[in-house]
Amino acid sequence: MKRFEEMNREELLVVYQQAQADYSAACSQGLKLDMSRGKPGIEQLALSDELLKLPALDQCNVDGIEARNYGVLAGLPSCRKLFAQLLGVQPDEVFVGGNASLTVMYDIIAKAFTHGLLHSNTPWSRLDKVKFICPVPGYDRHFAICESFGMEMITAPMLLDGPDMDKVEELIKDPSVKGMWCVPKFSNPDGMTYSEAVIRRIAKMKPAAPDFLLMWDNAYCVHEFDAQYEPIPDILGLCREYGNPDMAVEFASTSKITLPGAGVSCFACSLDNMAYFSKLIGAQSISYDKVNQLRHVLFLKDKEYTLAHMEKHAAILKPRFDIVLSKLDEQVEPLGIAHYFRPRGGYFVSLYAMPGTAKRVHALMKNAGVVMTGAGATYPHGNDPQDSNLRIAPSFPSLDELAKAMDVLCVCLRLAAAEKTLGK
Amino acid sequence: MKRFEEMNREELLVVYQQAQADYSAACSQGLKLDMSRGKPGIEQLALSDELLKLPALDQCNVDGIEARNYGVLAGLPSCRKLFAQLLGVQPDEVFVGGNASLTVMYDIIAKAFTHGLLHSNTPWSRLDKVKFICPVPGYDRHFAICESFGMEMITAPMLLDGPDMDKVEELIKDPSVKGMWCVPKFSNPDGMTYSEAVIRRIAKMKPAAPDFLLMWDNAYCVHEFDAQYEPIPDILGLCREYGNPDMAVEFASTSKITLPGAGVSCFACSLDNMAYFSKLIGAQSISYDKVNQLRHVLFLKDKEYTLAHMEKHAAILKPRFDIVLSKLDEQVEPLGIAHYFRPRGGYFVSLYAMPGTAKRVHALMKNAGVVMTGAGATYPHGNDPQDSNLRIAPSFPSLDELAKAMDVLCVCLRLAAAEKTLGK
Repeated sequence: MKRFEEMNREELLVVYQQAQADYSAACSQGLKLDMSRGKPGIEQLALSDELLKLPALDQCNVDGIEARNYGVLAGLPSCRKLFAQLLGVQPDEVFVGGNASLTVMYDIIAKAFTHGLLHSNTPWSRLDKVKFICPVPGYDRHFAICESFGMEMITAPMLLDGPDMDKVEELIKDPSVKGMWCVPKFSNPDGMTYSEAVIRRIAKMKPAAPDFLLMWDNAYCVHEFDAQYEPIPDILGLCREYGNPDMAVEFASTSKITLPGAGVSCFACSLDNMAYFSKLIGAQSISYDKVNQLRHVLFLKDKEYTLAHMEKHAAILKPRFDIVLSKLDEQVEPLGIAHYFRPRGGYFVSLYAMPGTAKRVHALMKNAGVVMTGAGATYPHGNDPQDSNLRIAPSFPSLDELAKAMDVLCVCLRLAAAEKTLGK
Repeated sequence: MKRFEEMNREELLVVYQQAQADYSAACSQGLKLDMSRGKPGIEQLALSDELLKLPALDQCNVDGIEARNYGVLAGLPSCRKLFAQLLGVQPDEVFVGGNASLTVMYDIIAKAFTHGLLHSNTPWSRLDKVKFICPVPGYDRHFAICESFGMEMITAPMLLDGPDMDKVEELIKDPSVKGMWCVPKFSNPDGMTYSEAVIRRIAKMKPAAPDFLLMWDNAYCVHEFDAQYEPIPDILGLCREYGNPDMAVEFASTSKITLPGAGVSCFACSLDNMAYFSKLIGAQSISYDKVNQLRHVLFLKDKEYTLAHMEKHAAILKPRFDIVLSKLDEQVEPLGIAHYFRPRGGYFVSLYAMPGTAKRVHALMKNAGVVMTGAGATYPHGNDPQDSNLRIAPSFPSLDELAKAMDVLCVCLRLAAAEKTLGK
């Protein structure tokens, strides 16, 4: 195979016609697949079968607390401890919330708007303009929160070791820049893990806004599928070390450890932040679902057991990522029409199609019966200035379906690139 | 026994000295009891033992939906249907939320502040003043939400058939009065159920604020313990009938049907409100805990089964309320130093001690080892202008403990009233 850039027009026309034929054949398969979200597959759900049988009745009174009754706002001590182990923080830095870290993240930002944060001079709702730094490509649901609150999203590019900190350090000089999203490990969608140097640079930022909020979404803290578990540095400790003790709030959940939407979420923060948020949350809740917290403690036990459990997820996920990458390696890479990262954990493969073709590829895929995350979804307001990034979520389809979907994707990438190059 | 008002000073002194002696004896028992919250007792928790074994693995796919995976923001159709039956509304008027209706109530008000409601001209956070009508006595956690958002609470007295609507109809002429709390059935704490006439008068209100929010907390919708189940009129339907289709949002949960804090909550509202709130909540959540929703549907089945289940709670609760009332009837009522209501459902007995003595009674009780809901807690900012109302929550203690606690309470009421009358 020749690279597109090495082909003359005649050769490109041959490729184009072949791609058209291949695409027609792909459409005639009548596929109906969804690769749009990082949704665990049915085999992964089965890994938590035992969870549904817990707790036994004689296990409901734990830590001297009756899990089935009201109370204990910040969560069962044993569940705070479990998350503390997973995040490398202290149990009293952990607040265990409801079923989803997305809700916890939204709520923390909502509190900034309605009440202000610990170091706010005024609630954000009283400000004319609130800006938030969004490393791109990033997670669409983070952007949706910003959008819902009318924040202005300022992008900073993701580099190979994390966000472009030269740019970030410039941006934070503006006091209306109030915070920043980070997915520090296996970032969504690129699957990149921030280097320690970048993490330290983040922790030592001196933003102009006294209430700058570092939203540290550690969604994939134990989610290696192709590597030994390796923790990232504790952001709370580093922020403390660099004189920003209250800047970061960290988030995690068991959504992709046990059952998505039926798991347990948490946030972790400084003790001063804990006191501040707990008081505010005290008006919102008597306690979160301690029976489900207990269920998870009994099932996941501790960090060691949880990591062993994650290896079972890895065994299911790795073959899926292998299919994605091998299909791209075989059919797309040699043509020089796209590049992509090779993640070792997380839920996505981030694919950069030929600039100006991502929306077209998405439409072609949809027409062929395969739903992908919307082109542009990884950018604020769905606007990818390069129209290039596509997020592949291989966890949900079966291996067979995934292989078919990837074949179609490769055809679509080829067709769209040929159209673009030929000016069709 | 003579009534206090019929006693001369000498007789009162005898009562006083006897009360002092009785109180010393009570203190020497070394009690350690908590009657502060409407917290179900351990026997009530046991009624839901079967719940913890659900769902079985072959039950997880329901309504064509895999309950263990992401998705379906407004909740499992079967769970929406269950709540719709309990509330007398339509399933598509029901949004099933997280583990607690308190959180859902807080969130709806938070949305009013951050985004505004369907008919708001501006988010409430932009307004100089937001006032909210609080029928008193009322639920302290409602007041805590108002307080947290800096709302000015305007009280309206509870009468025998609901809030004083003459007063309410005056208050709503002020456009900064943005809403009203109601616990329409077995109100907290008085245990009163609004009459149909009052409910209709509420539904036909014409508040000056276009985005007036009727917070209809139907916490005790199926919680009779001493009467046949009787539904109250559907507030959503009545509001629609009177041209206020979007004024009311109704709340309920299974906290006192199954397990407190580990149950399922919901709100119910007009379809226009449902579309409006669902869009906003879409930034906050992918879906709530559908496994727990399913667990509840499998356990509670339908309205008929739920009502039968509530009879088991009633069998546990009624003897407790009987103790509270019989102790008061025997030891307090004849002295004319307090009055109280005789609820047929809900979780509280609302006791009106001699004005000016509630705080003293609370302190005496605490000193004797019995924690009661704070005196004044049933009024905004904990300020009962009469210093009279005390909320008795008899569900949690054992029968034996409760009898002891009530004996102490009767002593404290007597002692405080004697002190007050004698000017001690």
